[in-house]
Amino acid sequence: MAHKHTSVDQHIATIRALVSLPVTTETVLLDGALGRVTISDVVSPVDLPLFRNSQMDGFAVHSADLDGLTRLTIVGEIAARAGTPNPLSPGTTVRIMTGGVVPDGADAVVPVEDTTVDGDTVIIHRRRSPGEYVRDRGSDLHSGGVIVAAGTVLAARHLAAIAAAGLATVDVRRRVRVAVITTGAELVAPGATPLLGQIFDANQVALVALVRATGGVVSTAQRVSDNPKALRAALTDSAAVSDLILTSGGISKGDHEVVREVLEPLGGAVEHLAMQPGGPQCTAVFNGVPVLSFPGNPVSTQVSFTVFVRPLLRAAAGLPAAATIRSPLAEGIDSVPGKRQFLRGRLIAGRVQVVSAPGSHLVVGMAAAELLVDIPDTVTRLEEGDIVRTWSL
Amino acid sequence: MAHKHTSVDQHIATIRALVSLPVTTETVLLDGALGRVTISDVVSPVDLPLFRNSQMDGFAVHSADLDGLTRLTIVGEIAARAGTPNPLSPGTTVRIMTGGVVPDGADAVVPVEDTTVDGDTVIIHRRRSPGEYVRDRGSDLHSGGVIVAAGTVLAARHLAAIAAAGLATVDVRRRVRVAVITTGAELVAPGATPLLGQIFDANQVALVALVRATGGVVSTAQRVSDNPKALRAALTDSAAVSDLILTSGGISKGDHEVVREVLEPLGGAVEHLAMQPGGPQCTAVFNGVPVLSFPGNPVSTQVSFTVFVRPLLRAAAGLPAAATIRSPLAEGIDSVPGKRQFLRGRLIAGRVQVVSAPGSHLVVGMAAAELLVDIPDTVTRLEEGDIVRTWSL
Repeated sequence: MAHKHTSVDQHIATIRALVSLPVTTETVLLDGALGRVTISDVVSPVDLPLFRNSQMDGFAVHSADLDGLTRLTIVGEIAARAGTPNPLSPGTTVRIMTGGVVPDGADAVVPVEDTTVDGDTVIIHRRRSPGEYVRDRGSDLHSGGVIVAAGTVLAARHLAAIAAAGLATVDVRRRVRVAVITTGAELVAPGATPLLGQIFDANQVALVALVRATGGVVSTAQRVSDNPKALRAALTDSAAVSDLILTSGGISKGDHEVVREVLEPLGGAVEHLAMQPGGPQCTAVFNGVPVLSFPGNPVSTQVSFTVFVRPLLRAAAGLPAAATIRSPLAEGIDSVPGKRQFLRGRLIAGRVQVVSAPGSHLVVGMAAAELLVDIPDTVTRLEEGDIVRTWSL
Repeated sequence: MAHKHTSVDQHIATIRALVSLPVTTETVLLDGALGRVTISDVVSPVDLPLFRNSQMDGFAVHSADLDGLTRLTIVGEIAARAGTPNPLSPGTTVRIMTGGVVPDGADAVVPVEDTTVDGDTVIIHRRRSPGEYVRDRGSDLHSGGVIVAAGTVLAARHLAAIAAAGLATVDVRRRVRVAVITTGAELVAPGATPLLGQIFDANQVALVALVRATGGVVSTAQRVSDNPKALRAALTDSAAVSDLILTSGGISKGDHEVVREVLEPLGGAVEHLAMQPGGPQCTAVFNGVPVLSFPGNPVSTQVSFTVFVRPLLRAAAGLPAAATIRSPLAEGIDSVPGKRQFLRGRLIAGRVQVVSAPGSHLVVGMAAAELLVDIPDTVTRLEEGDIVRTWSL
């Protein structure tokens, strides 16, 4: 057994040197843009509002008229709809609806509440200054102004502003395409009937969901036995449509390690990390596409993704880094010397409670966790109240 | 103008009395279950692990043999794959791979690192106690145990555990079906070319995205002019496929208020709330389906959704209530007496900064906000440092 184990940080550096995820543009309809991330400033091609319009239902007036007059002749009506109103002559007024085009000549709107209509005239009870209840063209944003800045995770309010400027699409970061290949002669699909010795493949579901939850898109998801030819075919298919390939299983020291068998002759490097779970890790390039290979135990796979892939994918997606928070332990724990441990925990009343034994097969224990408790490799014992670093799940 | 305005809280109570959103079950494939909410405890039909298996690559042994012997005869190999191994006779051992079925008779696994193979025998360098490196059947969870509790927002780790138990589907809360109808003769679709007097419909995009971001599903989204017949048709179509209908526009005091015109004869109630933006609000029932009608200004529509609909939809989706947080103001503000104001703000260095003028047409100002600043109707002036309640957007 190798005695010089690679550290987690060294392996992170290896991966950063190997994997360069593309940041490219995709143009999407607003209807599909919720949660996507703008790749550039979204610039308005128009003034907002598009035209000078009324803020209230009322009467458009020359405000100067109201110095002397309180009764104006109603010469028309302007609804909120297409149409070019006639200029307003002094001494006259038009009814105007909220959103209606304020006619040339008018410089204020008197709300209907402050008026009394008398036949074809209206009595104005309260005068208004120039500009009152008038929304000027461009008063929200001028043409050429930035509606939404680059790097914004698009929410409804951003999409509304983009739509208001008449844009039907928005340029966002293209999602990174990630292929998932789970390997192992023992794997059967959930819903199948396993024979003794077979288990349900939890890793495909997990990796697919992790990729999606991290801003990526799953380009293909395949399950292969321990047949090198089948794995090569799966890698070939995956590489053709992916920016990154993730595999699980087949990289430890057993006799049927299909991922090692295929990738090592191509220059793939298996490292045994000073890490639990997730000790064995393999990095490779297949047909020009980086491949990150995790051990097959389901907790190892999920922890490996969280530690090694999530930061890369979130950065490529333009999402902020996931939180790592320091909190006190709810109770003392022992740790394995020489291994950086990622235990499964929850935050209960502000303190970190470990919720699962360390076994990397304990998928239900993993499901119960909300965070990973990051115990440095130099530590063998921590006491209640000691501060630990945690990674949110 | 009405002088007795309804309060926001009274209107919330009116809506709660009117709207009862269904909580029903939908069975979805695991592949589509990310982010959905379990409606009941997910119970395992199997023991996890499914069978007693090895935690390491190594040799399965009778641990008692190692009291005297250090050399065992290798009688076979057990890979991680389908197969029923023969019971292990005393004095013998089998090679076993991680995940392999531990044969009857064996009670421990000696990791390969602690052994030396010598022809068809293996020398054991370190003895192991009963149970070591053996994962017992059911040691993660017994059949009938709860994998994931009811009310869980499904993440990758939950889906992995459900898959590991062999389940291909999961029962989740069905998404509430919400119809969106935007009204107004002035509206054109983003991407169209408006005439003077027309504006781009920002509300359809906004309401569709708000519904989706709140755990609902948009059943239909329609845009109608101010033609009552067209609105009745849109409402009829919507009611047939929806649990809730939202409309924008057509409820103020102008002359072309299509939503009032259609809904008031059916018992729809228009209230003028002591609220800015979002003063006019209408509630109705159309063909048995509740209808909530918001004013047409885009900021009013978004604020109305946030205040009146989001809490209902999140509760129906099984999502926790959105955060309302109290924080100090970064600078003093004036507020309109008698109106509860929802100003647009951001949290900057822990203090609430108002980022937009109050106008309900200021969509770009709304896009710049991260929260609504909730100013009670009794307040006319707040100073820097005064604590205000904010609603996250």
